[in-house]
Amino acid sequence: MSDGTAITELAKRRGFFFGANEAYGGVAGFYTFGPEGAALKRNVEAAWRDRFTVKEGNDEIEAPTIGPEPVFEASGHLDGFDDMLVECGECGESHRADHLIEDASDVEEAESLPIPEVEALIAEYEVACPSCGAALAGRSVEEFNLMFETAIGPGSGQPGYLRPETAQGIFVEFPRLKEYARNKLPFGITQIGRAYRNEISPRKGIVRTREFTQAELEQFVDPDTDDPPLDRVADVSVRLYPAGEQEDPDGGYVETTVGEAVEEGIVASDWVGYYLGVAREWYERIGVDGDRFRFRQHLPGERAHYAADCWDAESEVSGETGDDPTDGDWIEIAGFAYRGDYDLSKHAEHGDDDFTVFEQYDEPRTVERAVVDPDMSVLGPEFGGLAGDVADALRALAAREPGAFDGDEVTVEVGGDEVTVDADVANFRIEAQTEAGEHVTPHVVEPSFGVDRTVYTLIAHAYDRDLIDGEERTYLSLAPEVAPTDVAVFPLVGDEALETLADEVVSDLRGAGLSVAHDDSGNIGRRYRRQDEVGTPLSVTVDHESVERDVETVTVRDRDTTAQVRVPVADLADELGAILDGRAAFADLLDTYERVETDVTRS
Amino acid sequence: MSDGTAITELAKRRGFFFGANEAYGGVAGFYTFGPEGAALKRNVEAAWRDRFTVKEGNDEIEAPTIGPEPVFEASGHLDGFDDMLVECGECGESHRADHLIEDASDVEEAESLPIPEVEALIAEYEVACPSCGAALAGRSVEEFNLMFETAIGPGSGQPGYLRPETAQGIFVEFPRLKEYARNKLPFGITQIGRAYRNEISPRKGIVRTREFTQAELEQFVDPDTDDPPLDRVADVSVRLYPAGEQEDPDGGYVETTVGEAVEEGIVASDWVGYYLGVAREWYERIGVDGDRFRFRQHLPGERAHYAADCWDAESEVSGETGDDPTDGDWIEIAGFAYRGDYDLSKHAEHGDDDFTVFEQYDEPRTVERAVVDPDMSVLGPEFGGLAGDVADALRALAAREPGAFDGDEVTVEVGGDEVTVDADVANFRIEAQTEAGEHVTPHVVEPSFGVDRTVYTLIAHAYDRDLIDGEERTYLSLAPEVAPTDVAVFPLVGDEALETLADEVVSDLRGAGLSVAHDDSGNIGRRYRRQDEVGTPLSVTVDHESVERDVETVTVRDRDTTAQVRVPVADLADELGAILDGRAAFADLLDTYERVETDVTRS
Repeated sequence: MSDGTAITELAKRRGFFFGANEAYGGVAGFYTFGPEGAALKRNVEAAWRDRFTVKEGNDEIEAPTIGPEPVFEASGHLDGFDDMLVECGECGESHRADHLIEDASDVEEAESLPIPEVEALIAEYEVACPSCGAALAGRSVEEFNLMFETAIGPGSGQPGYLRPETAQGIFVEFPRLKEYARNKLPFGITQIGRAYRNEISPRKGIVRTREFTQAELEQFVDPDTDDPPLDRVADVSVRLYPAGEQEDPDGGYVETTVGEAVEEGIVASDWVGYYLGVAREWYERIGVDGDRFRFRQHLPGERAHYAADCWDAESEVSGETGDDPTDGDWIEIAGFAYRGDYDLSKHAEHGDDDFTVFEQYDEPRTVERAVVDPDMSVLGPEFGGLAGDVADALRALAAREPGAFDGDEVTVEVGGDEVTVDADVANFRIEAQTEAGEHVTPHVVEPSFGVDRTVYTLIAHAYDRDLIDGEERTYLSLAPEVAPTDVAVFPLVGDEALETLADEVVSDLRGAGLSVAHDDSGNIGRRYRRQDEVGTPLSVTVDHESVERDVETVTVRDRDTTAQVRVPVADLADELGAILDGRAAFADLLDTYERVETDVTRS
Repeated sequence: MSDGTAITELAKRRGFFFGANEAYGGVAGFYTFGPEGAALKRNVEAAWRDRFTVKEGNDEIEAPTIGPEPVFEASGHLDGFDDMLVECGECGESHRADHLIEDASDVEEAESLPIPEVEALIAEYEVACPSCGAALAGRSVEEFNLMFETAIGPGSGQPGYLRPETAQGIFVEFPRLKEYARNKLPFGITQIGRAYRNEISPRKGIVRTREFTQAELEQFVDPDTDDPPLDRVADVSVRLYPAGEQEDPDGGYVETTVGEAVEEGIVASDWVGYYLGVAREWYERIGVDGDRFRFRQHLPGERAHYAADCWDAESEVSGETGDDPTDGDWIEIAGFAYRGDYDLSKHAEHGDDDFTVFEQYDEPRTVERAVVDPDMSVLGPEFGGLAGDVADALRALAAREPGAFDGDEVTVEVGGDEVTVDADVANFRIEAQTEAGEHVTPHVVEPSFGVDRTVYTLIAHAYDRDLIDGEERTYLSLAPEVAPTDVAVFPLVGDEALETLADEVVSDLRGAGLSVAHDDSGNIGRRYRRQDEVGTPLSVTVDHESVERDVETVTVRDRDTTAQVRVPVADLADELGAILDGRAAFADLLDTYERVETDVTRS
């Protein structure tokens, strides 16, 4: 029921979001959230924090958005975080080569092709510049790194980059974070914050921007011993779109439960399966339409080499729903990856700290180890300054190949030369050693959410139109938990008693913790339309009848049905609070109080 | 009672904050907030939002952190946002020239001196490089722009800058924001988010960083008609340190109220005065120590030329308090500036949009205006292609200098040449025009808060040590509203019944909206110390006695006094909720329930 233009227009007019810096012509890929959008976004973040941080017992941190080069060298972003760039020889405009090929041909996933092949396809399909129409055949295609670069400090400075994901700020601090978790796996660290991608040519409005907000969870686990509490979500229904189905021209969805999907191996990792279930319930809670939602598995070409299994949460944003997975406009709104020990191993390799967790055994274990105790009074005179290196080489050899000490002589390599010593000098023996535990490099399971795209999805799925008394109405049926405003209060204007009562009502409702808009501008009908368009679930009108009875009353209007009921002011905060947090429904009000049949929307 | 080292050490050990990327040697000026610090920071932001956005009836937005060059050209940051850089000829290290001079001499505010004078002072005081000791005399001092620069898009890209303050993201969107405010002044827009300053040599730890969080309010007012609700804060006591007192060697504080300060003109703007009062109350609410807090007026040299009046909120962070304003280590934690129409005028000049508000008069006004209606049938043949320009010049002249049309001929300048036409041709007359309103460029009042420095201040002011049973204890007496955790729950370990009860207690308290830590590791004494150091106001212990009576009970311990009381589990959520939100005090529990005298901290 929504199309992109209508949503973008509503978003701008009502203050959800709009292109930033328009007074200066704007810059593609940067958006500002206006008052309604910023409130909706904050509510989405709070709901995510509640579910993925608090309820999971995880901890949240806040790292800087600028990082030094060595961090992104280790993470692989400096080398591998590229898109394919082709520049038009005529007009100089830059484009993503893979997107142009996909638009001009049946080729899919052009991103995964090698550059010479991409250049050949541009020639083969006679791809033209979308800006000026000139032929692009023969133009070279280059890798363009998507990180924004800057210089830290004066002079030429030290190179720094705006983080392309919040995750590295967690991985790089693992040596400290594990201390806060008292060295006990599993534990999870979350972060909500800005991330940046210097897109070659941003398109699709707020769906693909250069600056965006991520909510990420890094779940650190011992792969051998830690299991997720899968039974909590085993019965959650999920619509899966596995890689095999995507590659099959007749492929379709697999409708199943999380428990079955893991049991049957459709989802390879039980940790990934667990978070698919948690996410599916969370999306429903915040108002994502289940009929326009799916989990799509990454195709083998999409997947990072280290990721054992990876699924995206996708939402449909054009309104075209159906059983055919190729129908509709699907956007990625989250990713769930089993990343193995890739991230921590890379930082252990590049960084100077301990990225393992020392796991104590339940009781100490005795293991047999080959050890040597070289006689330095022999090695010293014989090898002089190299004696220490010879001893080290003997120790390493004993650990690697104990059998080498079986003969009379032992040969090791020191500084490129072979050195032979009497086996006796090494004092080789097998020793029983007691070990209290072992160092484990945790594996990482990463649910990573795009907040801006979630906000866009919520608006798209909440967007609706109907006819009220013959007039077309647009409204957003946002879930109360995320709606920017809980309740709007409208006094009829010009009557001081009504305005005073309205002030009291506003103050009562705010005191009860509700977010309240007080609107006394324009006729009541216009005020309703305004609140409908920003998704305010309930509107309260203070009218003449409010003060004409024994007890003060107001009318309460339900956004979705526009039904109205007259409620005593004394009951208002409790009744509205119950509806907003899901303990009651508006229908319960209709059962309890006097229904208002008159059409006050036109007053 | 605190020194910087102890706080930094505690912050690192307990997860408040620490230098980022330490595994890679770290980069000066970047910090990561660990779990406790991120929670404290979020709570400060929430308390700020409640006071400066919600309670003031303002709206909050979220703008991008990267902006295009023209925005910062307009704002003045491209030209004027500089520090003085001097590079050592020996070791190549960069330093702030003004800081070196201030450290080596009695010169204050060296920042405001012209560069040649700074170079002369370096020679005069024989300033040496703090890194290697080499003399800096003769080295050139340069302006270094503090904005982080980057390139947006591929190729050489378009220059972009990380915002040095969140404010520009509000000013630049004023044309749209005024629509959301329905063109009615006054209105306020807030924003909480990251800002960036590429400091030459960051020092003072988290107090002066390259990436930080601001909470800013831009209050847009009609300077002629809008007054703040000053009476709400007129009685708030404030300690002021006016410019005159700072310049007087014997100068001291002025202890007064907001109302008197405004009335006596110590604070020039009533809007600034209003926000000083609001801020003073807010700082008290979140736990800033009033004895280590003051408002310091900017000295004439510090003030931007457009700022009519400017005050900083300052906190003392070393523990040295007293009546002498020059004692102690004071840091700026907020600024309150009356910025006039500077910001919106600059954007109106550089940007292509309307940065005024059209204010309707109560009723239309009639004004007399000089108008011309040039006869183009005469001008056309005479001036050809320039006829339109001649007509425009005549219109401009009529508005500027109606008397010029009194004679027979009129002379105007067109394209550098003087052009004379018959006065008749201009059709000059005075017309009565009816005007519905006028375009007003709003003035801006800007309270701007540093969130990281506020967090640091709260830790410094909450930091305390005492002796408990002969053992030294460190604790943070944080206000419950901002403490990372409300309540910690400790079961004695090894007894399943106690652990089950503890789980129930945790679940109850979380259900009541409290933030709860569940700690079952180490002896109870160690757990108390852990919670004391992170400022958790209340700790609940589930011990053997908990399950031995008719009703289940737990002990509740007060962080600051370490007093303990035994409370029935059924009453727990209500009683703790009341203490945490200030409806009750821990002393009330001691009156109602059984005091625990035994020292369970050593169990």
